[in-house]
Amino acid sequence: MSSPALDRPVLYSYFRSSCSWRVRIALNLKKIDAEIRPINLLKGEQRSEEFLKIQPFGFVPAYIDSKSGQTLIESVSIIEYLDEIHPEYPLLPKNPLERAKVRALVQAVAMDIQPVTNLRILKYVGEEKKGEWAKHFLAEGFKALEKMLEKTAGVYSFGDSITMADLALVPQVYNGVRFGVDMSAFPIISRINSILSELPEFKAAYPTQQIDCPAELR
Amino acid sequence: MSSPALDRPVLYSYFRSSCSWRVRIALNLKKIDAEIRPINLLKGEQRSEEFLKIQPFGFVPAYIDSKSGQTLIESVSIIEYLDEIHPEYPLLPKNPLERAKVRALVQAVAMDIQPVTNLRILKYVGEEKKGEWAKHFLAEGFKALEKMLEKTAGVYSFGDSITMADLALVPQVYNGVRFGVDMSAFPIISRINSILSELPEFKAAYPTQQIDCPAELR
Repeated sequence: MSSPALDRPVLYSYFRSSCSWRVRIALNLKKIDAEIRPINLLKGEQRSEEFLKIQPFGFVPAYIDSKSGQTLIESVSIIEYLDEIHPEYPLLPKNPLERAKVRALVQAVAMDIQPVTNLRILKYVGEEKKGEWAKHFLAEGFKALEKMLEKTAGVYSFGDSITMADLALVPQVYNGVRFGVDMSAFPIISRINSILSELPEFKAAYPTQQIDCPAELR
Repeated sequence: MSSPALDRPVLYSYFRSSCSWRVRIALNLKKIDAEIRPINLLKGEQRSEEFLKIQPFGFVPAYIDSKSGQTLIESVSIIEYLDEIHPEYPLLPKNPLERAKVRALVQAVAMDIQPVTNLRILKYVGEEKKGEWAKHFLAEGFKALEKMLEKTAGVYSFGDSITMADLALVPQVYNGVRFGVDMSAFPIISRINSILSELPEFKAAYPTQQIDCPAELR
């Protein structure tokens, strides 16, 4: 999907979508001023004919590159792209082995935790069972992630610099808390999340700071 | 996890694991001779204390880099690593926008289709409902992937060169067929899968060609 060059990039986002949130943090860290176009997942706007042409799964985020007018989808792919075209604020180390370890942390969240506990899956699981389902897979996922972080964490998820892994971690912790997971069982995750949550680039990406966050949740 | 330098890399793999399969194709395309160490998922070997130290989720694959002796996990991360250290057989285009589109195709499979239909999830869903569950999410996923491929496919998933997207596609189609999805509804996916399945590097990665494939399935 391609359109003429734009003044600034566009991010299709939903305030509480953890995948949109990851990209919002990346944009903030890289000082990219993007227009946010809210897609209300609860109202089903992601399934409109227009949006499905952009993202055939009906998922947020989607990102329109301002220079080419081309639309990119899938959060991790968008973040890798932003990292390639804005290398001045790197989100991956230089060393290939270290890059692989950061990407593994990203994928632990983006492949093994988030997809099995998101809105689409919980809807299908059904009202009655969704709480138990989410709690089970979130707790199982955080347990494994904590083990991975034992080997990699410094101040942040991988050593002492912010990486893509941190962008994945913070929104996932929010979802853990939301579904009643006892996060005190995961001290490294909790510590890193607390430190990151104080940073302005992370604060500004928080759901309550988004233009589509309903007033009663602010 | 680090051990002394090895003669050759090691891949912890299960013959029918689609994530192991992706990496097997990458190794074949890049002409990397790796020792395969089978982990029998049906016997629960992935949950042994020893293996959980390597991969805390208990998932295959895991990859031991021969030079450093370090272990890498998460299939897409391993493939990105192999692509970085063996750039002579590239699995990503050079242009950042094109790279992002290939990665989006990979992630459509690796984040939005595979994780919600794998062994772990189907076990939790239960014997009675797992067939319907798998079929629903596989068909939904292939439908979206087909739409993505309408924009990107040439001979292969992205244009006329083999990319990471093709490594994700083939094992996922196998699982679609296995769960009775009518793949004729997805002509682009089916066509690309047929072409790829004839290539020696893809043939050698097929489940029935693995040392841990039981004789009765060969």
